[in-house]
Amino acid sequence: MSATILRPRDWQGVAREKRASIASRIAPYALSDSQLPNPTRKNVSQFLLYASFLTPAEKTITTANLSDLLLRLRSGGWSAKDVTTVYIKTTTVVHQLCNVLTEPNFDAALARAVELDAKLASSGPVGPLHGLPVTVKDQFMVTGLDTTIAYTALCGQPATTQSALIEVLEALGAIVIAKTTLPQSIMWGETSSPLFGLTSNPWNRDFTPGGSTGGEAVLLSMNGSPLGWGTDIGGSVRIPSAMMGTAGFRPSHGRLPYKGTVVSDDGQEHVPSVVGPMAKTVEGLVEAMRAVCSVDLSRIDPRVLPIKWREDAYQSMFGRKLRIGVIRDDGAVRVHPPVARALQQAVEKLRAAGHEVVEWAPDFHAEGMQLIEEFYTADGGEDIRAAVLAGGEPFLPHVEALVNTAPAVSVFQYWALNRRKWRLHEAYSDKWNASSSLTSDGQEVDLLLAPALPHVAVPHNYLKWVGYTKIWNLLDFPAGVFAVDYVSVDQDRITEEWASYKPRNLDDEINWKLYDPAVFDGHPIALQVVGRNLQDEKTLAGMKIIEEIVKQGPR
Amino acid sequence: MSATILRPRDWQGVAREKRASIASRIAPYALSDSQLPNPTRKNVSQFLLYASFLTPAEKTITTANLSDLLLRLRSGGWSAKDVTTVYIKTTTVVHQLCNVLTEPNFDAALARAVELDAKLASSGPVGPLHGLPVTVKDQFMVTGLDTTIAYTALCGQPATTQSALIEVLEALGAIVIAKTTLPQSIMWGETSSPLFGLTSNPWNRDFTPGGSTGGEAVLLSMNGSPLGWGTDIGGSVRIPSAMMGTAGFRPSHGRLPYKGTVVSDDGQEHVPSVVGPMAKTVEGLVEAMRAVCSVDLSRIDPRVLPIKWREDAYQSMFGRKLRIGVIRDDGAVRVHPPVARALQQAVEKLRAAGHEVVEWAPDFHAEGMQLIEEFYTADGGEDIRAAVLAGGEPFLPHVEALVNTAPAVSVFQYWALNRRKWRLHEAYSDKWNASSSLTSDGQEVDLLLAPALPHVAVPHNYLKWVGYTKIWNLLDFPAGVFAVDYVSVDQDRITEEWASYKPRNLDDEINWKLYDPAVFDGHPIALQVVGRNLQDEKTLAGMKIIEEIVKQGPR
Repeated sequence: MSATILRPRDWQGVAREKRASIASRIAPYALSDSQLPNPTRKNVSQFLLYASFLTPAEKTITTANLSDLLLRLRSGGWSAKDVTTVYIKTTTVVHQLCNVLTEPNFDAALARAVELDAKLASSGPVGPLHGLPVTVKDQFMVTGLDTTIAYTALCGQPATTQSALIEVLEALGAIVIAKTTLPQSIMWGETSSPLFGLTSNPWNRDFTPGGSTGGEAVLLSMNGSPLGWGTDIGGSVRIPSAMMGTAGFRPSHGRLPYKGTVVSDDGQEHVPSVVGPMAKTVEGLVEAMRAVCSVDLSRIDPRVLPIKWREDAYQSMFGRKLRIGVIRDDGAVRVHPPVARALQQAVEKLRAAGHEVVEWAPDFHAEGMQLIEEFYTADGGEDIRAAVLAGGEPFLPHVEALVNTAPAVSVFQYWALNRRKWRLHEAYSDKWNASSSLTSDGQEVDLLLAPALPHVAVPHNYLKWVGYTKIWNLLDFPAGVFAVDYVSVDQDRITEEWASYKPRNLDDEINWKLYDPAVFDGHPIALQVVGRNLQDEKTLAGMKIIEEIVKQGPR
Repeated sequence: MSATILRPRDWQGVAREKRASIASRIAPYALSDSQLPNPTRKNVSQFLLYASFLTPAEKTITTANLSDLLLRLRSGGWSAKDVTTVYIKTTTVVHQLCNVLTEPNFDAALARAVELDAKLASSGPVGPLHGLPVTVKDQFMVTGLDTTIAYTALCGQPATTQSALIEVLEALGAIVIAKTTLPQSIMWGETSSPLFGLTSNPWNRDFTPGGSTGGEAVLLSMNGSPLGWGTDIGGSVRIPSAMMGTAGFRPSHGRLPYKGTVVSDDGQEHVPSVVGPMAKTVEGLVEAMRAVCSVDLSRIDPRVLPIKWREDAYQSMFGRKLRIGVIRDDGAVRVHPPVARALQQAVEKLRAAGHEVVEWAPDFHAEGMQLIEEFYTADGGEDIRAAVLAGGEPFLPHVEALVNTAPAVSVFQYWALNRRKWRLHEAYSDKWNASSSLTSDGQEVDLLLAPALPHVAVPHNYLKWVGYTKIWNLLDFPAGVFAVDYVSVDQDRITEEWASYKPRNLDDEINWKLYDPAVFDGHPIALQVVGRNLQDEKTLAGMKIIEEIVKQGPR
C-alpha cells in the first residue's frame, strides 16, 4: 500500500459516511424499492434484461458487444452522452441489487461524455475507446475520488493524480463512470469489507461473486458496465469472472501499467500483482488489450516492457491446428462434476474441430502453492495488519488468518524463496519445451486448458481453494477465463464414483463435501486458458478460438 | 550464492592446492622466468605484442578484430585448433604476468577445437561463433570445473551441469578456454581474494585492473582472449573494462541468461546482477550480443524476455543525427582532469560530426546511491558472511566493511525500498521523456554520454567511488564503456581551478587528492554510453558510432 494511512478513528462513522456518500450520488438514477426485485429474491441476474426502466433502445446499447459499441461510438451513431447515461443507470441498479460501487463518478463522467461528443463532431474520435464508459476496481486512482482498497484508513483522501492506466484509458477516449468493490486488503477471493459491506452474486444473492475484483464481475455479468479493470495476484481478475460467467484476463507482468495503483504488500514483486481487463466475453478482452497496448506504455511506466500489441502473434493462431495441453486436476483439489464435464466437452469439441488435445500433468503445482503462500506472508502480515489497525476496523476472518499465518522471514530467507521460485520457473519452462514429445507432429503445445476453480460460484465464505488460478501468478503466465456452460442438475448428478471418492487432503475433502447439484444448478461454468510468459496475444487468440468452439448458449 | 557451502577447513591449504592446480595446467604453455619481463617491471601491457614466443602469424590471430577472426574461423582460413592454441598460450602468459586465471580448461578446449575443425570440414560451421575461444568469469558453471566466485568454501565441487550462457556459447560454436579471477564475494570493484590472490593491472602492476570482472579485462587488454563474459551489479563489467581500456557492456536485465550462474546475494533481484560481454572494442561487443541474442533465450531461461536481437533497432542509429545528453559530473565526486578533458573532446568531435549534445543534470543520482547501498546490504551481510566464514578464510577489508554496514532490514522495509526504487525509476523515465525540450528539433535524447569512473585506473585498494556505473544498475539502463584516449602529463596538468577546488564530501575529497598527472600518465581513459531500458541495440549502436568518432589512436 502506498497511500498515507491516517490515524485510528471511528471506523463505523467513516463507513456510514462513505456509504451515505455513495447513496447520494446514485440517488438521481436509483430505482424505488417497488421497481426493484423483492429483497428476498435470490436470482436477480436477468433483471436488467427484463426490467422496464430501460427502453428497448437502451437495452440495445447495454447488450451490444464491445466492438459494436466502440464502432457506434466512434462513428457517432451512439453519442458518448447517451451511452454513458444508460450505463450510469444500469451501474446504479446493479449496485442497488448487489452492492458493487465504492465511488460513483457520474457527474464527471457525463461532463466528459459531453466534451467527447463535441470533439467527435469537431475533429473525430480521440482514440479507439472514444466515449466508452468503463468501471475500475477501487485500487486505481481517479482524480477527486478516494482509493481505499477497502481500508477505512484510506477514506477521505481524494486523489490529485491518476493511475497510469486511468491516464491511458482517458487518452484513448474512455470515461470512468465508477469505482468498484473489493475485499479488505485485496488478498481474498471474495468481496467483503467492514467499509463497504458484502458484494453479492446476482445468480444467487446468498452466494459470493468471487473476488477480489468482485464488483467489476457483477457489473459486467448484468450489463452494468461494458468494460472493467481489476488486478490479479492469485486470481483476483479470474476468480470473479469465472464465478459470474464473464471473461477476465491476467496478462504477463510488464504488459500493463501498474504505476499509481494502490495495493497491499506493495513492493512484493516476486509474485507480482498485475492489472487485467474484464469484459462480458473474450472479444471485449481482446478489444481492451489491443487498444491499451497500442500505446508505448513503457514510456509512461518503467515497469512496462517496450512490447506493444503484436497483431501478428494474435493472428498467427487462427486458421491452424492448435495443440492444447489439458489439466483436469491439479493434484490437490479435485474439481466438481460440472467443471469436469465442461472440460471434457471442451476437449471433445476441440478435437472435433481439428485441434489436438493432450493430457498435461500438474507437475510442480504442489510446490508452487507452498511457495506462493510464503511470498504472500513473508512480512509476517505487517503491511496489511498496519492498514487494518490504522482504520480501527475489525479484521475479516480470512484476512486475520492471513496476517497471522507465519512470522516474518528474514531478507536472507526471502532471497532464498526467490531462488526457489526461479528453479520452479526453470523446471516448468523445461517441461513446456519438452511438450513437443506429447504431440502427434512434434510441435510444442500452444496453450493449456484448465479449470478456473474446482467449483462454480459458492455461498458466501465458502471459497477455499484458488490453486487453479494462483499457480499461473507464480509462473507469471498469461491466463484468462471465460464461461462455457451452466451447471445442470440433470447432467451433473452425483455419480457412484464421485460419492465413493476418497479425498486427498482437508481442502479436497471440504470441496468434495460441498458439491450438491441442486445447490449449484444454473450457475455459469468457466474454463481457463494459459500461455507461456509474455505470449499474451497468443493466449487471447486461443481464448477467442476456444470460446467460439466450446461455448454453449444460455438455456 | 546457490552452490553448496562445505564445512570450515584449512583455507590456506585449499588455496595452495587450487593455485598449484592452475600452475600445473598452464605449465605446458608457460614461459620461463627468463622469457618473462623482470618482475619489478611495472608496465607489461605491450609484452605480448613484442614478445618473441609468438610468431608473426600468431600475432595476426591475436590482434585480429572479432569479426575478422570469426570470418576466418567460419571459412576455415584459420583452424579452431590453431586459434585455440595461440590463445591458450597468450592466456597463460597473461596469467603469469598479472594472475588472471581460476580454471584453465585447455585440454577440453583443444579437444573441442579438433571436433569443431572436423565438423567444419564435414558440414560447415556450427554457428556464428564457430571455433572462437572465450574466457569467462568464475561465476559461470563449466562442466568439470569449480565455480568459486572466489570463495574458498566453493573449491573442489566440479560442475556437472553448465550455466545457460555456456550452453548457448557452445551451441554457437565457442570454446571455453579458461575461467578468470574476481574478488571474494564479487561485491567489489577490484580483483583480489584470499583464494586466488591479487590480479594486477598490466599498465602498472602496482595498480588494480578494477573488478569484479578483473581477470577478463586484463586478458582482453593484452590479447589473452578475444571475447570475455562477466556480470555487472554495480559496474563489474564496466569498471575493469574502463580501467583496462577495453570495451564492456551491461545489458538490460532480461536480455542474457543468468540461469545456472553462481552469485552472492542470489535472490536479491530488485537491483539485479546481469551477464555482460567484454571485448577489445565495441565491435566485439556487437558481434557477441548479435550472436547470443540470435537464439530465443527465453526458452532456455525464463528470466530472459522473448526479445531476440533487433537488427533494425541497431541500424536505426546509423546515418542520422544523434541527440546525446552529456553528464559531466554526478554531483557527488568530480572527475579527474583527464576524464573531463576526454569528455569535452568527445563532445566537440560529436558536434563537429553533426550530432547534437545537450547538458544532462545528474538528477536523482544521490538518492539512487543511497538506495542501491540499502539493497546490497538488506540482509545485513548474512549471505556473504556465511560464505566467507564457511571457508574459514579472512575477509577482505572492503568485504568485511560491506557485511557490517548495517543490520538486516525486515521484509516489510525491503518492500518499502523496492517502492522507493520504482518512484525513482518513474522520475527518471519522466525526465527522459521531457528531454525533447532540451534538443533543437524537439526530439528526445537518444543516449547519455558520461564518465565511467571519476578517474582512470588507480593503485591497488584505491577504488572508492563507483557511482558513475552503479546508478544505471539501479535504473536497469543498458550501459557500456570503451576507451577513447590516454592520460597525458602534458594535457592533463593540475590547473589553478583544480588546485583550488573545494570538495563536496569525503569521497570527493579523497578522489580530488588522488589526482597526480605523473602517476596516471599513459593509462587509458574510457567513457560510458547509456540508453533507456531494453534499448540495448540502440545503445550498442551509439557506442559504436561514438567510439569511431571519438577514439584516439595509441600514442
